[in-house]
Amino acid sequence: MSGKKVLVTGGAGFLGSHLCEGLLAAGAEVRVLDTFSSGRKDNLNGCPGRLEIITGDISGEEDVGRAARDVDVIIHAAFPMPVRERSMETKHIGAALAGLFNLLKEAAAREALFIYFSSIAVYGDQQYIPIDEEHPCEPATLYGAVKLAGEHFCRTLAKIPGLRYVILRIADIYGPRNSRVSTPVKFLLQAIRKENIVVHGSGRQSRTYTYVGDLVDAVLKAVVNPAAPGRVFNIAGDEAVSIYELALAARKAAGNEVDVVFAPGEPADDRKLVICGSRAKKLLGFQPRIKLAEGLSSTCRWLRDNPSYYG
Amino acid sequence: MSGKKVLVTGGAGFLGSHLCEGLLAAGAEVRVLDTFSSGRKDNLNGCPGRLEIITGDISGEEDVGRAARDVDVIIHAAFPMPVRERSMETKHIGAALAGLFNLLKEAAAREALFIYFSSIAVYGDQQYIPIDEEHPCEPATLYGAVKLAGEHFCRTLAKIPGLRYVILRIADIYGPRNSRVSTPVKFLLQAIRKENIVVHGSGRQSRTYTYVGDLVDAVLKAVVNPAAPGRVFNIAGDEAVSIYELALAARKAAGNEVDVVFAPGEPADDRKLVICGSRAKKLLGFQPRIKLAEGLSSTCRWLRDNPSYYG
Repeated sequence: MSGKKVLVTGGAGFLGSHLCEGLLAAGAEVRVLDTFSSGRKDNLNGCPGRLEIITGDISGEEDVGRAARDVDVIIHAAFPMPVRERSMETKHIGAALAGLFNLLKEAAAREALFIYFSSIAVYGDQQYIPIDEEHPCEPATLYGAVKLAGEHFCRTLAKIPGLRYVILRIADIYGPRNSRVSTPVKFLLQAIRKENIVVHGSGRQSRTYTYVGDLVDAVLKAVVNPAAPGRVFNIAGDEAVSIYELALAARKAAGNEVDVVFAPGEPADDRKLVICGSRAKKLLGFQPRIKLAEGLSSTCRWLRDNPSYYG
Repeated sequence: MSGKKVLVTGGAGFLGSHLCEGLLAAGAEVRVLDTFSSGRKDNLNGCPGRLEIITGDISGEEDVGRAARDVDVIIHAAFPMPVRERSMETKHIGAALAGLFNLLKEAAAREALFIYFSSIAVYGDQQYIPIDEEHPCEPATLYGAVKLAGEHFCRTLAKIPGLRYVILRIADIYGPRNSRVSTPVKFLLQAIRKENIVVHGSGRQSRTYTYVGDLVDAVLKAVVNPAAPGRVFNIAGDEAVSIYELALAARKAAGNEVDVVFAPGEPADDRKLVICGSRAKKLLGFQPRIKLAEGLSSTCRWLRDNPSYYG
């Protein structure tokens, strides 16, 4: 990565700040574009070395032009949906796709590699397992539909000479600095505070939690691998666990003997979710290394070290 | 259609105004929502009967809420891309998708049937002919990508109970009140003015021009047919013609012996385009009836009767 200049949008957010750390450690020059509406300056405290920070909005063509100057790579980790809101509003949809378009135009103009974070939410209900990248895309949530729309924007604009993109369909990412509404963090906080861990619904809903450090590893591999451009990759933890199993694991990581209790929740798909990661393994040499117990322990340590992080 | 209350977004535009005429003639009550930025009041002069007009923007939740009050059907003919511009800008993308989202939410809340105009541009390069609705969607233009994104929004939000939608993938629509940059109108105007008809590129690019009256017929059928909701239909003329053939047909319709001349143009796909309309025929009983010569004659008559339409 040495000598590469990388723009990370949303660089002060959860995902973005871990990417900045990883990129700097790998020798890249890093520039952050963030509105700081949900991103926070203190997320960047752990960054080794020099980081350029631009306060601005991906929806603004001027901000994007300034942020993308001279970059070799654009990693698009911004997503204009406030972390506290669990559903998308009209303004987020317009901003997400207009912002993506601005970034893609800049990437094409500068022949910068574009890394797009899509989501396994693009698949919708699983029609077979394991879900590989050829699985039909029929998103069941608006979030998934917006992420899928973004994939089409990447593919379509790649017909412009100069644009090279990589699409990473990521699963539930967790780790230090994660939003407090993410389930692993919520359960850990309950266990640390010796409250009951509250599982909504049957607890059988299956997820493939992915430790943020593994995601950073996948991104670094995608940036330098000549086989990556033009391709889509699933990036997900290889252990599917139920929400109930997650609650037990979080309790174990925190080391407090709290109760796991059930509360009413929306009916959900209780089938086991399995994401196929073999394309990323084969072409990028990527495989998740952090087991759930280890990732939860590390997140728990961070939560204990930063008791006032969530205010 | 009698007794049905229908909202037509972009109702003062080319497509919208023809829909209003057809809906009113079929006995529906019609309300128009239009910004009048490219739509025009005089497009609605030919409307038989009463028409309610709301000046407003699909991007505004309040405007949409007001316009959708008590409607049974929402026909979404607005598309926020100025007719003079041939490419999409950031602001159009945000507005198109945010506006669509507002309308879908209202349709779901009111259990109104939603008619979405997609485009055959969602298919991209033809991988086989005739192109049926199962053809892969790999748009080659941003317009196609935005239209495809809209389809995903319809499908995803239809997982909310109450939302029923029909997707119509339409081909090049032409007819009276069409934009002057549409190729049939451009050629007819050149022929009427006894200028040369200028064909850009090889002239072999293939299109399936669809007369606007046929499209209105398809929409009316889709609105009342219980087999339509949840489905996608190609709606296209069944004669594929080359641009050169179109030029000859326009000259014939105008009855002026002008020359057809060639000018440089972008390299284009010269293969014959064939759109399969058999699903619409089978399930909706729809088939295009207006042959190209007839549609061009009718458009030519209108152009001669309205010499100052384009200012």
